[in-house]
Amino acid sequence: MPPGARAPGVLHPLSAMATLNSNYLKLKAGYLFPEIARRVKAFADSHPAGAARLIRCGIGDVTEPLPLAVRKAMHLAVDEMGVRESFRGYGPEQGYPFLRAAIAANDYRARGIEVEADEIFVSDGSKCDCGNILDIFGDDNRIAVMDPVYPVYVDTNVMAGHTGEGDDSGLYQGLIYLPCTAANGFVPQLPDGRADIIYLCYPNNPTGATATRAQLAEWVDYALANNSIILFDAAYEAYIRDADVPHSIYEIPGARRCAIEFRSFSKNGGFTGVRCAFTVVPKELECQTASGESRPLHPLWNRRFSTKFNGVGYVTQRAAEALYSDEGRSEVEALIDLYMGNAEILRTAAEACGLEAFGGTNAPYIWVRGPEGLTSWQIFDKVLHGADVVVTPGSGFGPAGEGYFRISAFNSRSNVEEVARRLAALDW
Amino acid sequence: MPPGARAPGVLHPLSAMATLNSNYLKLKAGYLFPEIARRVKAFADSHPAGAARLIRCGIGDVTEPLPLAVRKAMHLAVDEMGVRESFRGYGPEQGYPFLRAAIAANDYRARGIEVEADEIFVSDGSKCDCGNILDIFGDDNRIAVMDPVYPVYVDTNVMAGHTGEGDDSGLYQGLIYLPCTAANGFVPQLPDGRADIIYLCYPNNPTGATATRAQLAEWVDYALANNSIILFDAAYEAYIRDADVPHSIYEIPGARRCAIEFRSFSKNGGFTGVRCAFTVVPKELECQTASGESRPLHPLWNRRFSTKFNGVGYVTQRAAEALYSDEGRSEVEALIDLYMGNAEILRTAAEACGLEAFGGTNAPYIWVRGPEGLTSWQIFDKVLHGADVVVTPGSGFGPAGEGYFRISAFNSRSNVEEVARRLAALDW
Repeated sequence: MPPGARAPGVLHPLSAMATLNSNYLKLKAGYLFPEIARRVKAFADSHPAGAARLIRCGIGDVTEPLPLAVRKAMHLAVDEMGVRESFRGYGPEQGYPFLRAAIAANDYRARGIEVEADEIFVSDGSKCDCGNILDIFGDDNRIAVMDPVYPVYVDTNVMAGHTGEGDDSGLYQGLIYLPCTAANGFVPQLPDGRADIIYLCYPNNPTGATATRAQLAEWVDYALANNSIILFDAAYEAYIRDADVPHSIYEIPGARRCAIEFRSFSKNGGFTGVRCAFTVVPKELECQTASGESRPLHPLWNRRFSTKFNGVGYVTQRAAEALYSDEGRSEVEALIDLYMGNAEILRTAAEACGLEAFGGTNAPYIWVRGPEGLTSWQIFDKVLHGADVVVTPGSGFGPAGEGYFRISAFNSRSNVEEVARRLAALDW
Repeated sequence: MPPGARAPGVLHPLSAMATLNSNYLKLKAGYLFPEIARRVKAFADSHPAGAARLIRCGIGDVTEPLPLAVRKAMHLAVDEMGVRESFRGYGPEQGYPFLRAAIAANDYRARGIEVEADEIFVSDGSKCDCGNILDIFGDDNRIAVMDPVYPVYVDTNVMAGHTGEGDDSGLYQGLIYLPCTAANGFVPQLPDGRADIIYLCYPNNPTGATATRAQLAEWVDYALANNSIILFDAAYEAYIRDADVPHSIYEIPGARRCAIEFRSFSKNGGFTGVRCAFTVVPKELECQTASGESRPLHPLWNRRFSTKFNGVGYVTQRAAEALYSDEGRSEVEALIDLYMGNAEILRTAAEACGLEAFGGTNAPYIWVRGPEGLTSWQIFDKVLHGADVVVTPGSGFGPAGEGYFRISAFNSRSNVEEVARRLAALDW
């Protein structure tokens, strides 16, 4: 019988019941943020007074209103949808040309980076993209992730069956963990052996660290030498303030042959509740087929988009386009200034408590080493119960995050100032 | 070494290059609709006069303006996003309670069907849901699809490695095809052997057929007897006119233990360019783990939503909610009346050409048997070049669709009347 064929009419050999994806059962507890939500709810239910003054610096969610330029564009687009001649039904799955062109021109060509509009795939979020990208890769790749790490990279690999079981510290067998510590400035060393797919995220979530051009070049060279693929998450690109920090992996020579980049409008335009992001897949990027031939990835990602996705809504794409207008840009700049001012206040406050703090200068996150001897969840509970403030436990991002916590700068200025006061008043 | 673990530092045994998902290479040509777009573009480029009068009845995309109730809700929601106090960032990944409750109350409880709000998962489209649902199932399930079939069901299984190679007629080894013909009223017979997962779609795309309560009950009984799962696509539910046609698989006793239902706002509210849909996963629905235990699917789908998705945008969810208001309902009713009036005109026109026509009475599609001896693509080209009208070739939906073509009723009344005239003038 040819491969893949099964004898008709024969009972299934392995089961007498449809099966589920047992890899899901390897996943530890809840995904980090639902687990935080659960603890906060339990606290709020039993401490109504604390709940009333609760300030959330946990999940990295923006808090400020959507820019006026964006709202104007959305109103206009909604009105267009009300007129037969300008109504838009299904759009191109990969995104409207107006948005792909705006992205290519502004995020890339304006910085002298070579990215074409048809290498950009507009999606409804970076979280989706980070998970969905695994669809186009083989299951036999050896996967490397940073530790601490955005949990979605790990969990989606667990769900895809790319790992063995997890242990109590959250490490999964079969993944290569690249420790990011204060000692290496939160930029990992190259692995000893071979990694096929490497997730890098800069500016980093959760540590707030950035990678220098030289450090990224080392990774690109590694990937080119090993025919590896770098999945580069640049969701926090807008927060870069230092002139010499690269904004895109494609600033590094050779990266077009080894890297996919993830970008989002969530953290620059405040689109966490609007939902728009994009991936860049350069046309020269290649991988190996099961029979050992080298083939481009671009047609596979394109095929995934046309088969498993129907594009981002028209109103949302017009909203994203508006971020590139003069008005939109200046509003985004003001938002970033606000959040980065918050970051400075929070980092200063953490240091004033005698704690060692990292990040917060090119990223909206401050990564704080807690007092000696406390686990991250102990610190989480201490800050929740002692200051009525929600932070994120570092160990939720991986074992190397143990003992740390993350403070998010996404908040109003008055809340941030209040958090600074409460941290100062806490008995550390 | 424990399962899943690999020796650190050892070169990957299978390749010296990251691998791609070779299952994608099994996919035949383009996905149907991009292929149609390609042929139409080639025609338009070489026949400017024909292009100028082209009428598209191919892809099932709505054409009429978005309901006023929807636009009003979107304007309001956009304004809410502009005020700090009512701004919404990340929402619940599964959908806002207001929308899940509206769906449960109106689409289910109002019809006496038991579906709870937390069994509803709000997404950005049924196409995405149909593809993504495979994530939570094992790879060893035996999959059955109708033939002809919405290509997404087949292609996503090919991409997931659930099939062998495809042949020239578009059949893939390893799938069970359930022929739907005029002889069985386009409702398939039960398979001889065991199927673990069965895709059913009623009202049907592409044939426009419906299944009776007795026919669906036969399938539910089969699924319960075999511990199979039915994936029930009810995207065209709003087009049902006959009182005895079931609107939901859950009208059939026992379906909560064997079926997942897919619904969409694309074809009732005209949301193809807005993007909102939902799945229903009842809590008693179970599948087998690799070790043979029975476990519920609801937590897996919930986990997929919280890990690989960030919810539908707030403005879009308010738009969907507005479809359940009195104003929204009456506007949807008017849209359906328009499209179903179109369907009647087109079906009558096809019959007047001496062609046998099906569907179009509880669905917006007319399924027409072409003249003897012509393939579906030959008919497609004949109608394109002879009448400047785009239809969909039946064989694009599977080998049992060969010789048929689908006419979509999604168009303005004047276009539909013109299409009827042109079909009448064509030399069949």
